[in-house]
Amino acid sequence: MNKRWPYTSFGIPDELFIRGRVPMTKEEVRSVVMSKLRLCKDSVVVDVGAGTGSVSIEAALHCTEGRVYSIEYKEEALALIAENKRAFEANNIDIIQGRGVGALKEISGYNRLFIGGSEGELPELLDIAAAELPIGGRVVITTVTVETLYQALEELKLKAFKEIEVTTVGISKGRSTGRYTLMEAQNSINIISAEKGEIK
Amino acid sequence: MNKRWPYTSFGIPDELFIRGRVPMTKEEVRSVVMSKLRLCKDSVVVDVGAGTGSVSIEAALHCTEGRVYSIEYKEEALALIAENKRAFEANNIDIIQGRGVGALKEISGYNRLFIGGSEGELPELLDIAAAELPIGGRVVITTVTVETLYQALEELKLKAFKEIEVTTVGISKGRSTGRYTLMEAQNSINIISAEKGEIK
Amino acid sequence: MNKRWPYTSFGIPDELFIRGRVPMTKEEVRSVVMSKLRLCKDSVVVDVGAGTGSVSIEAALHCTEGRVYSIEYKEEALALIAENKRAFEANNIDIIQGRGVGALKEISGYNRLFIGGSEGELPELLDIAAAELPIGGRVVITTVTVETLYQALEELKLKAFKEIEVTTVGISKGRSTGRYTLMEAQNSINIISAEKGEIK
Amino acid sequence: MNKRWPYTSFGIPDELFIRGRVPMTKEEVRSVVMSKLRLCKDSVVVDVGAGTGSVSIEAALHCTEGRVYSIEYKEEALALIAENKRAFEANNIDIIQGRGVGALKEISGYNRLFIGGSEGELPELLDIAAAELPIGGRVVITTVTVETLYQALEELKLKAFKEIEVTTVGISKGRSTGRYTLMEAQNSINIISAEKGEIK
Repeated sequence: MNKRWPYTSFGIPDELFIRGRVPMTKEEVRSVVMSKLRLCKDSVVVDVGAGTGSVSIEAALHCTEGRVYSIEYKEEALALIAENKRAFEANNIDIIQGRGVGALKEISGYNRLFIGGSEGELPELLDIAAAELPIGGRVVITTVTVETLYQALEELKLKAFKEIEVTTVGISKGRSTGRYTLMEAQNSINIISAEKGEIK
Repeated sequence: MNKRWPYTSFGIPDELFIRGRVPMTKEEVRSVVMSKLRLCKDSVVVDVGAGTGSVSIEAALHCTEGRVYSIEYKEEALALIAENKRAFEANNIDIIQGRGVGALKEISGYNRLFIGGSEGELPELLDIAAAELPIGGRVVITTVTVETLYQALEELKLKAFKEIEVTTVGISKGRSTGRYTLMEAQNSINIISAEKGEIK
Repeated sequence: MNKRWPYTSFGIPDELFIRGRVPMTKEEVRSVVMSKLRLCKDSVVVDVGAGTGSVSIEAALHCTEGRVYSIEYKEEALALIAENKRAFEANNIDIIQGRGVGALKEISGYNRLFIGGSEGELPELLDIAAAELPIGGRVVITTVTVETLYQALEELKLKAFKEIEVTTVGISKGRSTGRYTLMEAQNSINIISAEKGEIK
Repeated sequence: MNKRWPYTSFGIPDELFIRGRVPMTKEEVRSVVMSKLRLCKDSVVVDVGAGTGSVSIEAALHCTEGRVYSIEYKEEALALIAENKRAFEANNIDIIQGRGVGALKEISGYNRLFIGGSEGELPELLDIAAAELPIGGRVVITTVTVETLYQALEELKLKAFKEIEVTTVGISKGRSTGRYTLMEAQNSINIISAEKGEIK
């Protein structure tokens, strides 16, 4: 049993992560992301643009017989991922310092790819994924921009992906102010997911 | 490995369930519900107003050392739960025919309560839960109505619950029409969750 | 033609108002509010909890043969309303310093009531409105809290109101960051509207 | 005073329009569209893909010294526009039978363009608008698809447009079922608006 998170379901509360000013996939959206990744106990997951590492941590705690590669290049974020890895005792995480494309090329054997931040490299990242992922391997992309949503769909169609799905998740959370519960909105997140199909 | 759902993450696609005209907690909202339940492998879950049994099935597949009680009174829904139980080989589900309050009174030993349909019995259901749940036991309620959202918050505050949280989840899903991806909205679902606190 | 806003449609951009830290009904929600008020050129509108006066200004510019009463008690907000009144040359606005109920009692002859901030006085405000409004007179209430939404519906049902309607408006606006358009969410606003019915 | 709609604000209730199975811009979104058009009493408005004519009617009733051109090619929709024109006594509407680009080319002297349905012709429509609109003339586009949203932004940037703005409007409306108010979601609508800038 994990001391910091004694449950086995996803959606670890945001405040349990050590956070700086680095953006984080919030707990409810993270729950949906984990579901779109369709994990198994032995899944090998790559998290590109890992940020605070919240998706990496959830994947690592679930995939006890698998492995997680967290790719990140920002020093501040790298430090946070390392801290969270330690705090959650997520020893099956490999933290890889590097830019998305450069770092992803060096990894092999993964069957799940999460792209939370693509920094303009989405086409190249999906090229690498299309080559490396096994049949049935999955890609999940999150974005808040019109352009990346469009590009993700176009690129996934262009490459060998099937079961392409877009889900926009809008979360509002109640904040109690004594007598009243004020509903505060978070930005809607677009979650694009797809599966590597049979090669014809 | 489950033949119908060969993964271990939540969010089983809606179309994998055998469905009639019975309403169902949709996959993305269901993923968030499972996360708010904060399950363990040995959790004992009650699902009041189980409908097609989709929440029950997800809980049962996850809580391999636990148990799920699915309470439902409608004949059509009961038949669907039984079919889904069989299809997903979720043998740790007990299907209980009955109305919420009457049926819940007969069950003991559970530590998670999901109320997807309360049919006006929410105060009584939460009374029973407040007495029966152990410290740290959790309640999750979903509703699409203004009145039940308000009542759930008031009742949870009134009783011994702490960490009361409201999350409104709005999901839109892309439907492909050849060249275009049309975003179709689902009704926003309010998810209210809380934990049984220490008795003072 | 108004020099500051040379158009006759609603939805004056937020940045055209002189603003402090006082909350403001944002332009898109304000457009929907104006539509729910169902104004005529000679409508007499009361704006309770007028804030920056943005709803008052829109109403005043539209109701050229009518009148607007802006009720507000906070010094900072009162100053802003006066400044905006001057800037938009909205001479048919009467600014009334006072709390909602106390101030509303002193006004007569209005046929539209907008309540953007009720500060716990909603039942009393609606009592006064139910007595003072003519048949066909309208009330529009905005709120971001679960409790006020519920209370508004209950109170309107309890009193002589008909055509009670709730509309939740969720707005996201694109912010350009060079190549990308980031969609930023505002809190969802509940707009409750109703009409004074025939007295039986 | 208009007999069918005795008010001067926008947002005519959907049910006041004569409707077939033709899609319609719903009342709240229509209110926001009217505000983004930034109308004057003498505005000359073109409505491309007019559908039931609801936007045309609102514009015509407001622009009493202006004119509205409703472009539509579907027989069923053309009949509905004619019926609604008659019902609302909107005599300043010219109904033009034709496809978007072909029909728009034949019109001159307009200063507002609303595109509710572009049927793949958006680039050409915006080319014509960029040439014909006066400085300060405005374009408003609505869409529910990822691709048209992206294309609208790209095309507006490419051409002489400034103040490009995207607003996504998500509306839920309460439906009363006796004791309960069920919130029902409509699909989120993207509203893109822009202004013809100075030619350099």
